[in-house]
Amino acid sequence: MTPQAAAEAVLSSTTEPSGQLDLGHSRLDTDRPERCGHPEVVYGAGKSPQELVDVDRALHEAPGRVHATRVAPAGRAALQRELGDVVRSDERSATVVAGDLPDGTGDVTVVSAGTSDGAVAREAAITARFLGARTTEIPDVGVAGIHRILSQAPRIRAANAIVVVAGMEGALPSVVGGLVDKPVIAVPTSVGYGAAFGGIAALLGMLNSCASGVTVVNIDNGFGAGFAAAQINREIVRAAEAARATTP
Amino acid sequence: MTPQAAAEAVLSSTTEPSGQLDLGHSRLDTDRPERCGHPEVVYGAGKSPQELVDVDRALHEAPGRVHATRVAPAGRAALQRELGDVVRSDERSATVVAGDLPDGTGDVTVVSAGTSDGAVAREAAITARFLGARTTEIPDVGVAGIHRILSQAPRIRAANAIVVVAGMEGALPSVVGGLVDKPVIAVPTSVGYGAAFGGIAALLGMLNSCASGVTVVNIDNGFGAGFAAAQINREIVRAAEAARATTP
Amino acid sequence: MTPQAAAEAVLSSTTEPSGQLDLGHSRLDTDRPERCGHPEVVYGAGKSPQELVDVDRALHEAPGRVHATRVAPAGRAALQRELGDVVRSDERSATVVAGDLPDGTGDVTVVSAGTSDGAVAREAAITARFLGARTTEIPDVGVAGIHRILSQAPRIRAANAIVVVAGMEGALPSVVGGLVDKPVIAVPTSVGYGAAFGGIAALLGMLNSCASGVTVVNIDNGFGAGFAAAQINREIVRAAEAARATTP
Amino acid sequence: MTPQAAAEAVLSSTTEPSGQLDLGHSRLDTDRPERCGHPEVVYGAGKSPQELVDVDRALHEAPGRVHATRVAPAGRAALQRELGDVVRSDERSATVVAGDLPDGTGDVTVVSAGTSDGAVAREAAITARFLGARTTEIPDVGVAGIHRILSQAPRIRAANAIVVVAGMEGALPSVVGGLVDKPVIAVPTSVGYGAAFGGIAALLGMLNSCASGVTVVNIDNGFGAGFAAAQINREIVRAAEAARATTP
Amino acid sequence: MTPQAAAEAVLSSTTEPSGQLDLGHSRLDTDRPERCGHPEVVYGAGKSPQELVDVDRALHEAPGRVHATRVAPAGRAALQRELGDVVRSDERSATVVAGDLPDGTGDVTVVSAGTSDGAVAREAAITARFLGARTTEIPDVGVAGIHRILSQAPRIRAANAIVVVAGMEGALPSVVGGLVDKPVIAVPTSVGYGAAFGGIAALLGMLNSCASGVTVVNIDNGFGAGFAAAQINREIVRAAEAARATTP
Amino acid sequence: MTPQAAAEAVLSSTTEPSGQLDLGHSRLDTDRPERCGHPEVVYGAGKSPQELVDVDRALHEAPGRVHATRVAPAGRAALQRELGDVVRSDERSATVVAGDLPDGTGDVTVVSAGTSDGAVAREAAITARFLGARTTEIPDVGVAGIHRILSQAPRIRAANAIVVVAGMEGALPSVVGGLVDKPVIAVPTSVGYGAAFGGIAALLGMLNSCASGVTVVNIDNGFGAGFAAAQINREIVRAAEAARATTP
Amino acid sequence: MTPQAAAEAVLSSTTEPSGQLDLGHSRLDTDRPERCGHPEVVYGAGKSPQELVDVDRALHEAPGRVHATRVAPAGRAALQRELGDVVRSDERSATVVAGDLPDGTGDVTVVSAGTSDGAVAREAAITARFLGARTTEIPDVGVAGIHRILSQAPRIRAANAIVVVAGMEGALPSVVGGLVDKPVIAVPTSVGYGAAFGGIAALLGMLNSCASGVTVVNIDNGFGAGFAAAQINREIVRAAEAARATTP
Amino acid sequence: MTPQAAAEAVLSSTTEPSGQLDLGHSRLDTDRPERCGHPEVVYGAGKSPQELVDVDRALHEAPGRVHATRVAPAGRAALQRELGDVVRSDERSATVVAGDLPDGTGDVTVVSAGTSDGAVAREAAITARFLGARTTEIPDVGVAGIHRILSQAPRIRAANAIVVVAGMEGALPSVVGGLVDKPVIAVPTSVGYGAAFGGIAALLGMLNSCASGVTVVNIDNGFGAGFAAAQINREIVRAAEAARATTP
Repeated sequence: MTPQAAAEAVLSSTTEPSGQLDLGHSRLDTDRPERCGHPEVVYGAGKSPQELVDVDRALHEAPGRVHATRVAPAGRAALQRELGDVVRSDERSATVVAGDLPDGTGDVTVVSAGTSDGAVAREAAITARFLGARTTEIPDVGVAGIHRILSQAPRIRAANAIVVVAGMEGALPSVVGGLVDKPVIAVPTSVGYGAAFGGIAALLGMLNSCASGVTVVNIDNGFGAGFAAAQINREIVRAAEAARATTP
Repeated sequence: MTPQAAAEAVLSSTTEPSGQLDLGHSRLDTDRPERCGHPEVVYGAGKSPQELVDVDRALHEAPGRVHATRVAPAGRAALQRELGDVVRSDERSATVVAGDLPDGTGDVTVVSAGTSDGAVAREAAITARFLGARTTEIPDVGVAGIHRILSQAPRIRAANAIVVVAGMEGALPSVVGGLVDKPVIAVPTSVGYGAAFGGIAALLGMLNSCASGVTVVNIDNGFGAGFAAAQINREIVRAAEAARATTP
Repeated sequence: MTPQAAAEAVLSSTTEPSGQLDLGHSRLDTDRPERCGHPEVVYGAGKSPQELVDVDRALHEAPGRVHATRVAPAGRAALQRELGDVVRSDERSATVVAGDLPDGTGDVTVVSAGTSDGAVAREAAITARFLGARTTEIPDVGVAGIHRILSQAPRIRAANAIVVVAGMEGALPSVVGGLVDKPVIAVPTSVGYGAAFGGIAALLGMLNSCASGVTVVNIDNGFGAGFAAAQINREIVRAAEAARATTP
Repeated sequence: MTPQAAAEAVLSSTTEPSGQLDLGHSRLDTDRPERCGHPEVVYGAGKSPQELVDVDRALHEAPGRVHATRVAPAGRAALQRELGDVVRSDERSATVVAGDLPDGTGDVTVVSAGTSDGAVAREAAITARFLGARTTEIPDVGVAGIHRILSQAPRIRAANAIVVVAGMEGALPSVVGGLVDKPVIAVPTSVGYGAAFGGIAALLGMLNSCASGVTVVNIDNGFGAGFAAAQINREIVRAAEAARATTP
Repeated sequence: MTPQAAAEAVLSSTTEPSGQLDLGHSRLDTDRPERCGHPEVVYGAGKSPQELVDVDRALHEAPGRVHATRVAPAGRAALQRELGDVVRSDERSATVVAGDLPDGTGDVTVVSAGTSDGAVAREAAITARFLGARTTEIPDVGVAGIHRILSQAPRIRAANAIVVVAGMEGALPSVVGGLVDKPVIAVPTSVGYGAAFGGIAALLGMLNSCASGVTVVNIDNGFGAGFAAAQINREIVRAAEAARATTP
Repeated sequence: MTPQAAAEAVLSSTTEPSGQLDLGHSRLDTDRPERCGHPEVVYGAGKSPQELVDVDRALHEAPGRVHATRVAPAGRAALQRELGDVVRSDERSATVVAGDLPDGTGDVTVVSAGTSDGAVAREAAITARFLGARTTEIPDVGVAGIHRILSQAPRIRAANAIVVVAGMEGALPSVVGGLVDKPVIAVPTSVGYGAAFGGIAALLGMLNSCASGVTVVNIDNGFGAGFAAAQINREIVRAAEAARATTP
Repeated sequence: MTPQAAAEAVLSSTTEPSGQLDLGHSRLDTDRPERCGHPEVVYGAGKSPQELVDVDRALHEAPGRVHATRVAPAGRAALQRELGDVVRSDERSATVVAGDLPDGTGDVTVVSAGTSDGAVAREAAITARFLGARTTEIPDVGVAGIHRILSQAPRIRAANAIVVVAGMEGALPSVVGGLVDKPVIAVPTSVGYGAAFGGIAALLGMLNSCASGVTVVNIDNGFGAGFAAAQINREIVRAAEAARATTP
Repeated sequence: MTPQAAAEAVLSSTTEPSGQLDLGHSRLDTDRPERCGHPEVVYGAGKSPQELVDVDRALHEAPGRVHATRVAPAGRAALQRELGDVVRSDERSATVVAGDLPDGTGDVTVVSAGTSDGAVAREAAITARFLGARTTEIPDVGVAGIHRILSQAPRIRAANAIVVVAGMEGALPSVVGGLVDKPVIAVPTSVGYGAAFGGIAALLGMLNSCASGVTVVNIDNGFGAGFAAAQINREIVRAAEAARATTP
């Protein structure tokens, strides 16, 4: 028996393979909290209201809390109707949260360049909050009025991780990255027109940032940036807790 | 006779049409100084050394001065050999100037983001100088160390026109554009790698600048930016001279 | 204390940082007239009617006049309702102006290639007018009937700055640039279909213009071109005024 | 037997299928003169000198004349050595012609925008000449000095078909197309840099020409344009000959 | 006076420049029939119904016949209402013709690959018909059933010019081009999905055709192909007529 | 007579060429079952309901069964109304089948990465079923929870051909390709947003798969993948049948 | 313990994990023959000669035979020197084979459009041969001389799997796909220039083929196509063998 | 005085602005260690050997240590010659380090998919090491042999931050991201050919990863990923140290 075959033998040894839940249209990864430290987050786009309800109810019962992004109005209504009071939905960012939000520890700061970047910034903040981070939002500090971001530098430097959201030329992360010694996660948005190409200009700008160590997520992916920032924040908080616990 | 035909009749009324000089391989636009206020500038790429010598000698004799860009080493050597002492060539920017450079009036300032943008910035400055502008160069003030450009703001504001040269994410024009009330001409450079795509990232960033009124030229086109800046500078200088001349 | 820190200390020394106005969703750059010579212009796309009203009312009170572009019908209606008679909106270009338009000095000429480029040309003209320029519009003089633009050459040469608007292959700026000795700012439009790619063909054509010194703005960015032209026009007018004032 | 099968049965009825010649590495289409009115033209790129010699010798023997494009120096040398005096090669356009060139009838005019477009224009002219057309070349009449092309309009209008070669923004075909009532075939060239993208800017400009009826070939494809123009020219010449022959 | 200035002097010598008609929003090129052999064709996209009526009425009165493409339903209704019985509109291709269609001479054949390419093929055929050609349409003969096009080869070879319309991979022009000795004008269509990229796949396929002398127009540009084919057809017909007229 | 001409003579020897059926708007390839082993499949997009009914009725009568993809609701309704009970349409994948589905032999397995890829996976499965394959569907086994696909490996290895459907980064085929020794056909889907670019990211991922022998079809082309898989499956089944038939 | 953890426990239970061989710079997948039915094939590009020798020697000792693609001349020389007589390298396709080639069963046919596509076609054929297939090569049968491919149709239909190699517009697979009832795997090549974009035109053409069931591999990926074709061929051969073995 | 002006006044109050060092060609950001926690890293591409020596010597004297990336052989030789024994250069990754490397704390793990990704992985590891992290490298564990990465999962989970380097389809980060609860930074490489497009395929794959929280840097940007990972690692280490220090 080859080693891969041995591994597969373990995985397929039961008729209903464990670590997953087969709903017919979807196969939930119920093993994720143990493996990745957080429950599966539901990608709402392209799912029917009924599929959303099925998946979210199953997750709600299994690991206790649900977070869904890009949920259309019909889906949000169905979730509210079927899962009841526990559901809180945010209209601007099309996000749904079911279950109690934790209090939040550490500090994830979400900076955005323009008012129109607000929905993506909000998705990042809600996601980070859902995953246990305390969050701060600083909107509308784009680089054409550079004194706006400079005046916020002290607040930004206090964060454990910083999400910077910008459309158009996406220059803000380069300026922020040069002001701080903390991880900067850049989110290009589709704000703009013409040669903004739906966010490509901002994406390329961020990937080519002259500031060291800026990392980037997909266009409009506030979720991904909030997730990564919360993960970093959690590791820092945990490290401190572990150190305190083991210091005699 | 249609109106267009009437115009053509004027233009083609002589066997050798005036306003142009036929060298066989090239047809010089000898009418340009009168029409556009400056002699034809020679685009050196793709011309053989002999063609360069032919064109430059003809221009040298006709309107008095020659400026050629993107001249390969073989072309520069041929020009030096054939046109003699009057030729001065700048190795970094591959530019050749024949004839005496004017003293320069007004102020065209060329700002660049990194050391590697130097060749393009130099092409812009030489071009502006050739067309009659006094020039200032401020290199290596990219946005990742924002205090560098901020500390130069007073000098930059004193210009009649500002050329901003940057590669990678091309963010510098947005910051400069927000600091001044003067025309800003942005030049993306091909400095960078990977998703810089040979200057596309910087080009898109500049076209989508959130600072109002930034205009853009082709990638690595220091010539075009220097030309446009010198043109603006000249009009401002001329306007003042005309006003002085007509003020009783 | 590092120099950057010193600068930030000045900027953040008050609880409400000066030079900006925090409306919650937006942070106005109230310092801009002093710094850049003009009040902030509002980018209407992606803002709710209420956000537009908030921002425009605040700007209307602060620096005295408001200019907003890309305002959807609902936004225009809300502004009319809330800011009243002072608001004048232009339907074709989706632009809103509040406050009295200045009389206009100098000369900014807006040339366009086809009837379908009219909305963008109008945005350029209104913007230039708002920023103090006297404007002239010359529509529908595309290069396929070259006598149309040739017959307008004397009028165009009289301008301080020229905006050239064209879709499809975007050839008009090259022809205009070869006819005049004034700054030419080219605006590609999204007019066309198929391989026009929403304005990319015109944009590339203009960036590669064989006429010297043509500068370019984003696709459909009449605002940016009008702004840049007005800025050049203003500097020329100012230079003449200053010269007259200082000539004994 | 299906109809397709019947057709194939005819084609494959001999062990060596007729209408083609199998050289091992290549399969010549010896049927082409009868079917398309001209012998196969050899695409030299990617063929070894020996393969070129094999193919050209076979064609030379079969339909009497050979025309090969994009032949590297080694290939040109091999052809000269092996096929001897009958070979004439043009260095600038990397074209080889074997056999006697016909005198040429009708009129194919090749207009080009800049000196650097010369190699492509030459390929077009040689090809048209090879296929029986009398040709005229008008170089360096780009649109930035519009009087140059206007002064040539009467000559251009006399052609049966016009090839217009241009790099950079590729605007020349639009102007020519608006001046004449003859078929215009546009050839974009890779002349330019930066956002010229190796000829894409010119290609898109030509595809979106506002002049009616301009058709386009691949970037740097002087061969294709010369071929198409010669084909049109031949049909016009033939029609006149046929009419004369049948007029009593 | 420079030669260009002399030409401009002729063109601008009257207060209302001749050869053009200024409608405020549009400037008609009334000189075109004399210069290019055909009246201006109206590009309907982006024009309001009223602008369409203005332009078409003016053209209808001036050179006698009107042809407009890409006219939306509202525009077609307005034209029908205002210009009355003389207007005939074709719904599938969104084309409007006003005035009597000539009988047609020569032969322009329009071949298309699939049923979905029908609207573009129709636009080509109507345009060619409007410009005086007799036309033949051969639909749905794509290369996946190669016997369909082979069985039509004799009909296709009889044409003076051939328009080949195809979407998806755009292979049909290569096959047709290899079967005939007549000019082939290829029209890529936006038929397809996914990596067809709205016609880019077909466009690239046609530009890279291995058949010699295929020329290409913009995606979905049936008008341009019909125009070019009619122009070629007319020159062939004219040549025969001229020959007959001058043969003693 | 050239060989090609001989072939064409066979094909065009009857007034109504055989092997095809001319419906005016469409030309059916009735020869396909004999030539390719299956009846023509109708591409529903861009056809009117009436054209669909005409084509499907003709095919239904001729080779006995009809399969149409990408049929809009109006088209599905028309087919149901006109062809009656024999039509079965699948709403999710917009597919219509007329006639009895065969029982199915062999094994084509369709694996998909996410719930949102379901429509494309269904189109693949229905197509394979229509062409005679027995099919298995395994949904929602994306690589972020790698144990899900590993636990299905034994089932997947039993297939004759495997279709793998995935959007976003399209990584699933690489993992599956490394687990099995059977042909893997990858289908990128347009599921995703931002830099997914409507399926380009998944398409490129699959074309560059590090697993050997993965082949790819167009974005969202479940039909093509199901077709190719069924073809492979059929050849394997046939080979076994032929061997059994000829084994003494 | 989660199921994934259980699987990992099996895989990591030994200090040197089985099924793989750690060479420091490389980690060989020695489990592949058992899992995928064939030994690992070495991707030569980017490996130093020494790394190539290390990897190939290890593979040569382990599963018995070595196949490496894209091996530069230095690498081929090193392999010849170090592995000795068992190595046979093919210069045109830069492929190296070590060990005895099997006799080959079944039939994989490799069709190519032009002489310049020969290297890629050869890579496909050698790969298929290495993996146990008998192979046939049919070069230079592009669609511009359609009788060439038609005359080969009977030979092509006899294959178990067909590889079709083409550059430029990549039309050949559509024609072949419409002639046969066997799996067609299309390989776009980088042959061409200008808008061929290094194979993109051919790639898009093949992905959008109007022939049903054509699948595609990466540009110039003769290896992948040969691999896939050999895999299909092997399954068909195996099925027949199994059937014979089990038929009483 | 506006607030921005006040800030600038501080910055420009000395003739030589502090926090920067003007070398003529370069302006060093000597304020960076204090502001961002690390000295400036030198981007070697496009700098002459002499410029490199100037910059590195200045940095070596100022903040004590130098790190330069993308240094060509001539530059590495010059640095070795001028800065002497303190320089250690890594040939594979073209990186130069001057000064003593710190011992390293925490854990940054660098995983790579193929042997050819080694240079980029090395750049990431050296950078992280330079910035104070202890590093682990795990090469050649691509997804086509999925047991290789699964067997390393326990080692990978122990890291504070994980860099995943992959070319071709870039699938490895999605699999790793689904296995761990630590920050994953993905680096696409330019390894691959054809539709890999120099790393675009891998870049898009990583930006669209279905694993939550994966962040991405530019193509081949090992430096950026190593930097970001080291920054995260440092914050975790610092948090633990701070907690220990403050725990009574």
